[in-house]
Amino acid sequence: MSKNGSISNSVIKRLPRYYRFLGELKKQGVERISSRELSQRMKLTASQIRQDLNCFGGFGQQGYGYHVDELRDEIGKILGVDREFGTILIGAGNLGRAIARHINFDTRGCKLIGIFDVDDQLVGRQVGDLQIRHTDDIPEFCAENHPLAAVLCIPKEATQKIADTLVVMGIKAFWNFSHYDLSIGYDDIIVENVHLGDSLLTLTYGLNVLTSGDGEEDDDYVEE
Amino acid sequence: MSKNGSISNSVIKRLPRYYRFLGELKKQGVERISSRELSQRMKLTASQIRQDLNCFGGFGQQGYGYHVDELRDEIGKILGVDREFGTILIGAGNLGRAIARHINFDTRGCKLIGIFDVDDQLVGRQVGDLQIRHTDDIPEFCAENHPLAAVLCIPKEATQKIADTLVVMGIKAFWNFSHYDLSIGYDDIIVENVHLGDSLLTLTYGLNVLTSGDGEEDDDYVEE
Repeated sequence: MSKNGSISNSVIKRLPRYYRFLGELKKQGVERISSRELSQRMKLTASQIRQDLNCFGGFGQQGYGYHVDELRDEIGKILGVDREFGTILIGAGNLGRAIARHINFDTRGCKLIGIFDVDDQLVGRQVGDLQIRHTDDIPEFCAENHPLAAVLCIPKEATQKIADTLVVMGIKAFWNFSHYDLSIGYDDIIVENVHLGDSLLTLTYGLNVLTSGDGEEDDDYVEE
Repeated sequence: MSKNGSISNSVIKRLPRYYRFLGELKKQGVERISSRELSQRMKLTASQIRQDLNCFGGFGQQGYGYHVDELRDEIGKILGVDREFGTILIGAGNLGRAIARHINFDTRGCKLIGIFDVDDQLVGRQVGDLQIRHTDDIPEFCAENHPLAAVLCIPKEATQKIADTLVVMGIKAFWNFSHYDLSIGYDDIIVENVHLGDSLLTLTYGLNVLTSGDGEEDDDYVEE
């Protein structure tokens, strides 16, 4: 049975969050949980949760709820946390180095095997277990090690060109921190854009509405 | 006229992206753009764009399209990019320092005025224009400088307690990088959670589906 051939993006987007919450429950020693309890913790409706998890065949039992450990393992398998996808990171500036440490410390599924930068001052520097290499070495590295994923922490001007080159070298997935929407033009390539600037502006918007509500300025934007 | 008292979250979420695209168009010297052209660039439908921008009173003219500069300025005002919300960052580890540099380099609206950590080895270190202070100094700092936003780059175990304390000190908005959903329990506080781990797992899922499609393993998860 093909369980997840036609799962909507919105369900997929929620899976990592289910995985995270179930991991926390497991740590707390919780063995089973009802969809109602889980829904209260996750701020979703119980029917939403049942619907989401049914997409994968449904793991719950009427009157018993979900077995935390089992459900977490199943979602982990669907997500691929037991896999080891070779991953390279391009752009070892402040953000790049922080993300590099984050990947191998905190995540599963993608394993960082190479870090690259154009800056000779950074090349040779150690980040965790890896030494930063020059971007000129990327082709040789990819031919030898066949990474499937690339993390891009480079200026947006450079993003499209590097991404194009990496696709030729066999990269199938991009985790993109450049301020650039990389989805454009690639149909078979997986792209996860992280726009930190957009995220902060969403917060700024909230503060703007909140403080304008004091009536001090910008009456146009008072919430009614 | 109250233009944005009842704007849906999904529209608000798209505003920073409009702002970013319009900024790129401006840089490229584009003076005006039709909703159709903008929709092609942004991978939204033209009617979606017209609908979104109508929420704010509508800036387009039939047969002329949108004036790039004017529309960008208007959206910027709505977002609050012309404001300077005092912002503090807690947790000056690798990610925290990278985010700190990112905020003042790349964004507007929120201005970083203080960086704090519990680690004595980090206290006193310079990050951009700011010196890392000890978290013990937060109450005094807040009393003097009245920051409104806090960036949290701390372990999830510490997040709730620090957030509670910061709310008492007048913080109204959190940009949260801890692996913890902070929304819970605060109704009047703005929270923007950035879950890097969830984002990477979404990519891992994509790779898992893609590579399982080779028929090598996990036939259950082949897309049909």
